[in-house]
Amino acid sequence: MFTGLSAFPLTPVTARGVDEKGFSHILSRLTDARVDSMGILGSTGSYAYLTREQRKRVATLAKQHAGNIPVMVCVGAVSTDAILHLAEDAQAAGANALLLPVVSYQPLRDEEVFSLFETVTRHASVPVCIYDNPGTTHFTFTDELHGRLSSLEGVRSVKIPGVPDSPAAAIERVNALRQHLRPGVTIGISGDAYAGLGLNAGCEVWYSVCGGLFPEMAKQITEAAAANDRQRVTALTTRLEPLWSLFRKHGGSIRVIAAAAGVLGLTDMDCLPRPLQPLSAGDIADIAHVISTLELK
Amino acid sequence: MFTGLSAFPLTPVTARGVDEKGFSHILSRLTDARVDSMGILGSTGSYAYLTREQRKRVATLAKQHAGNIPVMVCVGAVSTDAILHLAEDAQAAGANALLLPVVSYQPLRDEEVFSLFETVTRHASVPVCIYDNPGTTHFTFTDELHGRLSSLEGVRSVKIPGVPDSPAAAIERVNALRQHLRPGVTIGISGDAYAGLGLNAGCEVWYSVCGGLFPEMAKQITEAAAANDRQRVTALTTRLEPLWSLFRKHGGSIRVIAAAAGVLGLTDMDCLPRPLQPLSAGDIADIAHVISTLELK
Repeated sequence: MFTGLSAFPLTPVTARGVDEKGFSHILSRLTDARVDSMGILGSTGSYAYLTREQRKRVATLAKQHAGNIPVMVCVGAVSTDAILHLAEDAQAAGANALLLPVVSYQPLRDEEVFSLFETVTRHASVPVCIYDNPGTTHFTFTDELHGRLSSLEGVRSVKIPGVPDSPAAAIERVNALRQHLRPGVTIGISGDAYAGLGLNAGCEVWYSVCGGLFPEMAKQITEAAAANDRQRVTALTTRLEPLWSLFRKHGGSIRVIAAAAGVLGLTDMDCLPRPLQPLSAGDIADIAHVISTLELK
Repeated sequence: MFTGLSAFPLTPVTARGVDEKGFSHILSRLTDARVDSMGILGSTGSYAYLTREQRKRVATLAKQHAGNIPVMVCVGAVSTDAILHLAEDAQAAGANALLLPVVSYQPLRDEEVFSLFETVTRHASVPVCIYDNPGTTHFTFTDELHGRLSSLEGVRSVKIPGVPDSPAAAIERVNALRQHLRPGVTIGISGDAYAGLGLNAGCEVWYSVCGGLFPEMAKQITEAAAANDRQRVTALTTRLEPLWSLFRKHGGSIRVIAAAAGVLGLTDMDCLPRPLQPLSAGDIADIAHVISTLELK
């Protein structure tokens, strides 16, 4: 399941809690598009803002909708105990894999992170994907640590936060990481703006935020990558530059994707968990314009 | 209560959960020394690693021990809902004040942070201290934001993460911040290595990690500051340089304070919540040596 398009949907949240109807609307788009897998409760899925009970419910809903599409559930938390409870819940809900970020409060040492993954993979009966996202978790992985973690039998993929800006440097980066990994452990590109560079550099999977809302478009890109059509990957991802520009402008993807879900009528216009707030009306109008211009649907 | 020595004790945690006996031993030292207030469940108090139930229990234990010493309880969490529940719990346990850090996952905007404080102070019936700790929370306050927050009636103190390294620059820093604050809102120095500089620059309170374990020593320092004896403040804090050096070496105070609590026989030698791990035997021996040399007790 750690290849192709892994779509990371938003979890819409209102003052009344998780918007289950809006979430179902979003999930239906993913099943209709036959994404290769779903990444539930990722960063855009607001795992960090939800209670254990809410996270269990969201995982259950996702499995109910997913049919035979594999579902990966993020089990990130600050404490090891919390992570183990979340992993139990996710597996009880039917998760096919776990996504494990290193959420830190006190800065962590590599040995502490290794022990964490060792503990989680020992307890889990489904495979684990390493979630490398320093922008939100503030933990920076070395390639050596990725290599050590990939030696754990349960670890099957690494979700990387991006690649350098040129095709040659991106290839060098992916190859350098791969030399450290156990054979068979896939590398997934994340940070949607890097998708084209990452896929063309040999990443086997796109852990995709915009694929969580616009799966048809994202699937065209991963299918072009699977067909080794680098030119088409570049053309399709370059075309989306106005979307990446919005992500940059608004300090990441979540506020833009939440606004887009509202624009599409899938959720309320205000669907972010507090303290996060929706963008201004003017910013939302810009997003609607980009959606229309790029013919995203 | 936002003046003098506010002692921030460790919350010892073992594989069985919060070590209530060890915590009581630590609290007794604070009541014996008649600290001016206690800051429970701060960063060294491992709030970020404990469940809502554990945090409620720790706050209750602290109030049971504290007698008439005011108790401030940290209610930090990623989501506003969680913070409001924690604030209810803390107040139900008898907290005299709330300490509110800006724990971020998605980077927050100033407006979102202002709304968070507005919401919490509106719901709370006890005063709130702003917890400015970019090293763990990754949110950076501007002085303007501190000023806006201090205009909220419930906000009564700001816990700052340190001051510049020279006495003149420290005074300039504290004065610059104070110009933004509503009169009567105190400034508290944090980051123990900056205590002397901060107190001599006019901070009215020391939010002190080492005061949470060695309150007699810390109280000598805040008493010297209250008596305007700057030379004595400098002498007493400079003497502790070997302790600050250990904090720097071990990436912060928590692992050192946890080791010291073990060395003093107050807790198990391993009293940190996973994924945090205790220091090595060699590092602990160094810490024991510093405790002995500085005659900390």
